[in-house]
Amino acid sequence: MSAQIIDGKKVSSDIKAELAAEVAELKKGGLEPCLAVALVGDDPASHVYVRNKEEACKLIGIKSIKEQLPASTTQEELLALVKSWNDDPSVHGILVQSPVPSQINEHEVLLTIDPAKDVDGWHPFNVGQLMVGESTFESCTPSGIIELLKRYNIEMAGAKAVIVGRSNIVGKPVALLLLHNDATVEICHSRTKDLAAETKTADILVAAIGKPKFITADMVKPGAAVIDVGMNRTEEGLCGDVDFEAVKEVAAAITPVPGGVGLMTVAMLMGNTVKAAKQQAGVVERSIV
Amino acid sequence: MSAQIIDGKKVSSDIKAELAAEVAELKKGGLEPCLAVALVGDDPASHVYVRNKEEACKLIGIKSIKEQLPASTTQEELLALVKSWNDDPSVHGILVQSPVPSQINEHEVLLTIDPAKDVDGWHPFNVGQLMVGESTFESCTPSGIIELLKRYNIEMAGAKAVIVGRSNIVGKPVALLLLHNDATVEICHSRTKDLAAETKTADILVAAIGKPKFITADMVKPGAAVIDVGMNRTEEGLCGDVDFEAVKEVAAAITPVPGGVGLMTVAMLMGNTVKAAKQQAGVVERSIV
Repeated sequence: MSAQIIDGKKVSSDIKAELAAEVAELKKGGLEPCLAVALVGDDPASHVYVRNKEEACKLIGIKSIKEQLPASTTQEELLALVKSWNDDPSVHGILVQSPVPSQINEHEVLLTIDPAKDVDGWHPFNVGQLMVGESTFESCTPSGIIELLKRYNIEMAGAKAVIVGRSNIVGKPVALLLLHNDATVEICHSRTKDLAAETKTADILVAAIGKPKFITADMVKPGAAVIDVGMNRTEEGLCGDVDFEAVKEVAAAITPVPGGVGLMTVAMLMGNTVKAAKQQAGVVERSIV
Repeated sequence: MSAQIIDGKKVSSDIKAELAAEVAELKKGGLEPCLAVALVGDDPASHVYVRNKEEACKLIGIKSIKEQLPASTTQEELLALVKSWNDDPSVHGILVQSPVPSQINEHEVLLTIDPAKDVDGWHPFNVGQLMVGESTFESCTPSGIIELLKRYNIEMAGAKAVIVGRSNIVGKPVALLLLHNDATVEICHSRTKDLAAETKTADILVAAIGKPKFITADMVKPGAAVIDVGMNRTEEGLCGDVDFEAVKEVAAAITPVPGGVGLMTVAMLMGNTVKAAKQQAGVVERSIV
């Protein structure tokens, strides 16, 4: 029996429609959420990602500011821009598109963003709030994964979740969010011995490795939910970290690539921007930052 | 064959001796590290913990300030004390002994401590820095566990580490530190199904549950290293979360209670205080806070 396809396109559309209705109400009260994005240099993929964010903003009714900076931009110039947005009360969310050119210290840039406007959820303060279970902007790909699991009624409490990949933006935060949803959580990576033996214990398997079709059918427990965070450009086109065609015959539920987790990331970013606007306007209680 | 006993008393004494030598040098340069501790109320265990910290300070040559506040202390009074220490350049490390009375919002207190003086490593900023692998004050019990493993040459890279317990001060941060040391990491807790099956996969087993002798010999893989973070007062006296007498016949290495992890916590706190003093005096580079 073939697995249920977890439809990120549908869920992300639903979320954007929910947000559009909410933003329409906020605008009646005089509040227009605004997201400011800095894009440094000419990375083609980054341009695509930023365009997707702009289009999502437009669809929902969020004001979008894009600052396109040359690849030669200095650290000081980028920090000055971020600080000007920190100080601008009409800007509610700020992000600097990753990756940045090598002369830029990305961690210092993150530390400069006001945590109250850090809608990517990458500032260490927000990361720490997430880890201890306090109010924060949850980073968007991990929270998108949790949202997919919830909307497809995939039980997290008591489930064994295995995450392959230990990045700061996916592996570690999604492990913590699954833990907070009462899953037993295991993080595997390049140094793991006998990876297949570990992944086969997973009721929920999250692949965030960055290697095309790395997770094969023999690594998956029959009946598992498989979440594919990979986004690899190959000669045969875009593909995930999971061998979709084979794994969907073993799993009970699976996300496709494209059409799965990737679309959720943008939707959750929009949600964080609306939340930031409401917090800054005092519509909802803000965390202490 | 009985397991090697991991001697927290010896290792913590070694660390304190190393720190005493370092502090003697710093004092020649005019720098006297100083730790300020607030103790609110009459919890007898807290009084013991604070006394242990004071004695360690004295042994090493760290100046120790203790502010004993009544159980009726208000949030405002405690925050005012913390802020006065934040502003005092002669105070390098600040901690408020946990637990605090119920009228105190402990998270807000943490948020008020200057992250540069947060030697417990509990401020969300420092927690976030730890999670993303940036410079921080590592929280003391987790870093004490890593130090024991290192000084006993217990290989973490590629090892399967299972942590039982998911607290903010032990379970979650020790999982991240083990991950950063290249272990495959699993976090189990009260909602885990078939806990014994999970713990039996562990090369390194960390017990941080708070239940006396909860980890029995049949839950331990032969040859494992067992780290007992428990500190339970029972009718038979102090005991850990591990059934020590039985488990030591299965494990290759084990920490006793008392005489194991507990002593390391204080030693690592002293190390963080010395580090804070050096950072604030510009002796070593400080993280961006």
